[in-house]
Amino acid sequence: MRALVKTRPAPGAEIKTVPDPTPAPDEVLLKVRRVAVCGTDLHIYGWDRWSQSRIHPPIVFGHEFVGEVVELGSRAEGVQVGDLVAVETHVACGMCHLCRRGLMHVCERVKIVGVDRDGAFAEFVTVPARNCWPVPAGMPLELAAALEPLGNAVHTVLAGEIAGCSAAVTGCGPIGLFSIAVARACGAGPIIASDVNPYRLELARKIGADVVVDASKESFIEKAREATEGRGVDVLLEMSGHPQAIRDGLEALRNAGRVSLLGLPSGPFELDVTRLVIFKGATVQGINGRLMFQTWRQMNELLTSGRLDIRPAITHVLPITDYAQAMEQLKKGSAGKIVLLPWGETATADGTKASAAVHA
Amino acid sequence: MRALVKTRPAPGAEIKTVPDPTPAPDEVLLKVRRVAVCGTDLHIYGWDRWSQSRIHPPIVFGHEFVGEVVELGSRAEGVQVGDLVAVETHVACGMCHLCRRGLMHVCERVKIVGVDRDGAFAEFVTVPARNCWPVPAGMPLELAAALEPLGNAVHTVLAGEIAGCSAAVTGCGPIGLFSIAVARACGAGPIIASDVNPYRLELARKIGADVVVDASKESFIEKAREATEGRGVDVLLEMSGHPQAIRDGLEALRNAGRVSLLGLPSGPFELDVTRLVIFKGATVQGINGRLMFQTWRQMNELLTSGRLDIRPAITHVLPITDYAQAMEQLKKGSAGKIVLLPWGETATADGTKASAAVHA
Amino acid sequence: MRALVKTRPAPGAEIKTVPDPTPAPDEVLLKVRRVAVCGTDLHIYGWDRWSQSRIHPPIVFGHEFVGEVVELGSRAEGVQVGDLVAVETHVACGMCHLCRRGLMHVCERVKIVGVDRDGAFAEFVTVPARNCWPVPAGMPLELAAALEPLGNAVHTVLAGEIAGCSAAVTGCGPIGLFSIAVARACGAGPIIASDVNPYRLELARKIGADVVVDASKESFIEKAREATEGRGVDVLLEMSGHPQAIRDGLEALRNAGRVSLLGLPSGPFELDVTRLVIFKGATVQGINGRLMFQTWRQMNELLTSGRLDIRPAITHVLPITDYAQAMEQLKKGSAGKIVLLPWGETATADGTKASAAVHA
Amino acid sequence: MRALVKTRPAPGAEIKTVPDPTPAPDEVLLKVRRVAVCGTDLHIYGWDRWSQSRIHPPIVFGHEFVGEVVELGSRAEGVQVGDLVAVETHVACGMCHLCRRGLMHVCERVKIVGVDRDGAFAEFVTVPARNCWPVPAGMPLELAAALEPLGNAVHTVLAGEIAGCSAAVTGCGPIGLFSIAVARACGAGPIIASDVNPYRLELARKIGADVVVDASKESFIEKAREATEGRGVDVLLEMSGHPQAIRDGLEALRNAGRVSLLGLPSGPFELDVTRLVIFKGATVQGINGRLMFQTWRQMNELLTSGRLDIRPAITHVLPITDYAQAMEQLKKGSAGKIVLLPWGETATADGTKASAAVHA
Repeated sequence: MRALVKTRPAPGAEIKTVPDPTPAPDEVLLKVRRVAVCGTDLHIYGWDRWSQSRIHPPIVFGHEFVGEVVELGSRAEGVQVGDLVAVETHVACGMCHLCRRGLMHVCERVKIVGVDRDGAFAEFVTVPARNCWPVPAGMPLELAAALEPLGNAVHTVLAGEIAGCSAAVTGCGPIGLFSIAVARACGAGPIIASDVNPYRLELARKIGADVVVDASKESFIEKAREATEGRGVDVLLEMSGHPQAIRDGLEALRNAGRVSLLGLPSGPFELDVTRLVIFKGATVQGINGRLMFQTWRQMNELLTSGRLDIRPAITHVLPITDYAQAMEQLKKGSAGKIVLLPWGETATADGTKASAAVHA
Repeated sequence: MRALVKTRPAPGAEIKTVPDPTPAPDEVLLKVRRVAVCGTDLHIYGWDRWSQSRIHPPIVFGHEFVGEVVELGSRAEGVQVGDLVAVETHVACGMCHLCRRGLMHVCERVKIVGVDRDGAFAEFVTVPARNCWPVPAGMPLELAAALEPLGNAVHTVLAGEIAGCSAAVTGCGPIGLFSIAVARACGAGPIIASDVNPYRLELARKIGADVVVDASKESFIEKAREATEGRGVDVLLEMSGHPQAIRDGLEALRNAGRVSLLGLPSGPFELDVTRLVIFKGATVQGINGRLMFQTWRQMNELLTSGRLDIRPAITHVLPITDYAQAMEQLKKGSAGKIVLLPWGETATADGTKASAAVHA
Repeated sequence: MRALVKTRPAPGAEIKTVPDPTPAPDEVLLKVRRVAVCGTDLHIYGWDRWSQSRIHPPIVFGHEFVGEVVELGSRAEGVQVGDLVAVETHVACGMCHLCRRGLMHVCERVKIVGVDRDGAFAEFVTVPARNCWPVPAGMPLELAAALEPLGNAVHTVLAGEIAGCSAAVTGCGPIGLFSIAVARACGAGPIIASDVNPYRLELARKIGADVVVDASKESFIEKAREATEGRGVDVLLEMSGHPQAIRDGLEALRNAGRVSLLGLPSGPFELDVTRLVIFKGATVQGINGRLMFQTWRQMNELLTSGRLDIRPAITHVLPITDYAQAMEQLKKGSAGKIVLLPWGETATADGTKASAAVHA
Repeated sequence: MRALVKTRPAPGAEIKTVPDPTPAPDEVLLKVRRVAVCGTDLHIYGWDRWSQSRIHPPIVFGHEFVGEVVELGSRAEGVQVGDLVAVETHVACGMCHLCRRGLMHVCERVKIVGVDRDGAFAEFVTVPARNCWPVPAGMPLELAAALEPLGNAVHTVLAGEIAGCSAAVTGCGPIGLFSIAVARACGAGPIIASDVNPYRLELARKIGADVVVDASKESFIEKAREATEGRGVDVLLEMSGHPQAIRDGLEALRNAGRVSLLGLPSGPFELDVTRLVIFKGATVQGINGRLMFQTWRQMNELLTSGRLDIRPAITHVLPITDYAQAMEQLKKGSAGKIVLLPWGETATADGTKASAAVHA
């Protein structure tokens, strides 16, 4: 099959022909129908420090995708050939003390598809049957490919009280945008979004932010206080990983507020824990992955009931052969979520604004 | 002043001239601007068993209202003359062991405005300053008068997980209708509403129910299972107080689901606790009043951010002198929430569909 | 092998020789070392209405036990031959929507060992490897056999706030006694225990109740209020399944208190939900099984750290051939937990007071 | 009256005669019976950077105390002359948006007794009636004086799951010691305590730690993993405020564990949030004060039911005139909690080991 492979421990990647994968007994073989590009893929492509320590080339990367089941391993349960499935990419061991407590999302021996095992920038991919989530009938493929990162947003937003709460979303990359949409769908308001990229701020407004702040030009803290009549925000959803955004976010938080951190700071940084966390009585949560599979169930219901619409955040649908362009656009911040069409797939006129926009 | 007074321990009420009330040191005097009619008012008017045991005529009743502060007691804090305020009608003692734990909504010595002390079917009313909630700028008076019962709905819906959950609302009186709107605003879906009154079911659909069930003609249990692909509902919001609705609701609940009971059964009834509660691992919550004042804050944010719109449930605005007609319509179930205009007040063209509808 | 078999749809049971069981690929074969008698076993033995609808003879019953792993199925993971294991007897399907949400304890397709498949009143038994919990080093076998019902108590007590709370335990059978010990170990106080059997009340006091109430002679409600300076109890742990105990327990509960129901009423009964649940703002939880496997982890830590001692509740250790006597004593209420020694096992002088007491 | 006064913006304090305080209408006048010394008092005495920014001499300091009500303001409710009361020292405004949400412990306009208004190193002190907590009958005065800091420990320990959890307490000053006792009383185990002071570690063991670690000589991380069979601790109760203790504590935490921070770092410090918080899925809580008054109720029940015994942590009872010696001992770390006897008070032979120990 054809695949986009990280062949060498250096920047870049190349399209190659590799052997078709074979599902293990508890796995399924999927034909990839759409695969989205994650910030992590950009890191692997650019070969940053984290990639150098974690990735072992050659490997097929890509882990946000929707596929069709084309073959079942001998013990694969819960799915059928022909099913369209999204995939939870954290393959938990199921046996460690954390898995046994129901904390599979932080399994001690987790393997991530497209990071620790071959991923979905390819015609086919294998995953454990248990990791498949059936795509609700009628859902556009582009949206189905984005369920995995949307799940990060759902997990973050629903990690505490949100309805009737003011919320700040710092960082308006794809998951930040998703978080705005999810928070709005779940009754948060006002929603204050910040970034330093006008294109992303425009998307933020489009997907539901009540107030957008260009943190390069305005004081986020002031704007957040203003939007909350001076009270400060109830909830901070941190999606940027920038130390200053975290510090400003904490500053803008009301006492006893909630901070959920998903954006990954690139290294250790200084924080005034006494003033910003302890005296505030704040709760700061690290968010990793998606709860298996409560998060998927919640996301499923939000989407199928029509409460949640994330289409404004899916800005591009490109053939996988344009991967270099996709990486470039993500790097520049001139795209929301980019979905790739594998070989042989063409954008269907399936009613997503996303596809429409791109092909107009 | 003029007031609608429960003068005698018998059905009915009459408009009388009574002395103007005087605020105690920690109280304020309010000029009533709008007052809505509650099911409890109907009970008092009709002089049911509960009223006979609780109400001591003569008393001015009515407890869902918005007023303008016209005088401050000597120690009244937190409000100013001229403020427009909605009122938390549970006057908690502040000193009992429950109040001290932050459970003022179930205070052991609670006094309810319009039940245990004079209420708001009048030109003026006094309440503790502490019980006032400033009405957000620009909110239509009809809506402000409904904040107290809306708070019951907010308290019920947000008493547990709701976003990304399927929810059933059994009973589509005004608080049932509000609950549908609140659940929808907070990310519940699908929302299945049931009643036996076609007029109310129509309102239920209008305010946001995904599925409506006429329980006199269809099986609620079947419809609820159907709407959830056989899983059963995650959350039951019980607003009818009918034993059969409670039993059916529990039957339709998925294992480990949540039941929040606000509707008041009129007496003890039989329940198969073993099968419907224990084996199911269900959580059943009794809901009383509103959390002071978290519920008010959540409600405030839901409304001012535009997430929540309850106007379809406010179907009538009538002069208070038409009280008999209002009582009659509520009794027949041919109204949602009815708001009354006190003497000297005329419906303002303030943009509520409600007023518009009524005066069209 | 020898086994105690429910051979016919009628009262009684008989010791028979049956074929040795063979583990399926994901199962293990256990040599039973100790097996305790549950109230459910008594129901099966006596052939009550529930048994008649659920049990399909012939079946080996018994489901509270500790065994030694003597053979592994081909895919059995997480245990080794020679391991001593206690067993979670709810065999969850792992695939239904409840299991996927982490709610395996209320799996829609649960099979219970000793109820829906052969159990442990036998020399050998097979169970899924996944259901095994390694017995902490040094734990007496009699205690290890009681982990499954102790888990019910741990699940019940820890289903809400307990530390620094007053708690009532209504019903002092073995799980009631365990609950007293667990509640005490977890910081509850005062603990008020009620029953109508003086022998059990004596055990209740011994295992840690601060106040014991003979509900046949004294008013439980009065005693509970007295013990809490008139406030009412914060938490009700209901272990009797008696409608009157449930009603009285709710009556004795403070507003906004917690009720956790484990005892199974034998049929529907009348309850004043309005007064006892809704006006109180109470939370009533149905408790089923044990959380998999959080409850086991909590129980493990409570026992190995020495915080929890349940030995006073294990009153008898008898050879399995005395099963009729064991059933009789449980029926009469003249025993706490009874542990049986399978064929070939003799009570070890392992330091349990339990064994000591019995063999003195 | 006589009082220990911070007279000048410089190190030290002096005993002076000052006017007797007069209670405001909602306040009470208390005769101080015992007053304990807090780390904050040491900061004020030593005149550190924080004190310089917060304290406005002249002021009477001291805020951990028990007093007898000797006079009631005209509107003081809930207490009587002659009552013995402990005092919640956070005087919340009751009107800000945080107080209205029930978050009085992080009131935006809080005034702290002995910090922002005159305190209890004196013969008399005034406090709002609402801040008084009646001392349970029979409680030794030395213990009653320590309820305020004990409340910090109770708040910290009970800010999340604790029963059946392993817990680390980093920092064994008085509140660290109290936390060990509280965690143990509430079912935590094993409890791993760390400090660098052998005297304190000895007290830690005495009050209930299962494992003590001298972090100056041993690896806390290794010891914590060892004590938990390699799993890491479930809960970290951070009482030292040392950046390295926080980092090591997070390192020793299992994924998805809880961290409750009470110890105050003296300034900003570097933290690897990505690895230690986000990837771990940890929850980090800042803890401030005591929940009003849930924490007091829980503490009351823990003590009166005998579940909790903190006497080993109260190591010294000294006359207030020995204040300089008390400050010196706290600074050296050669004391647990020190309780002072105001003028005219002599240590009663009331059965506390504390008094006994000191006067032996």
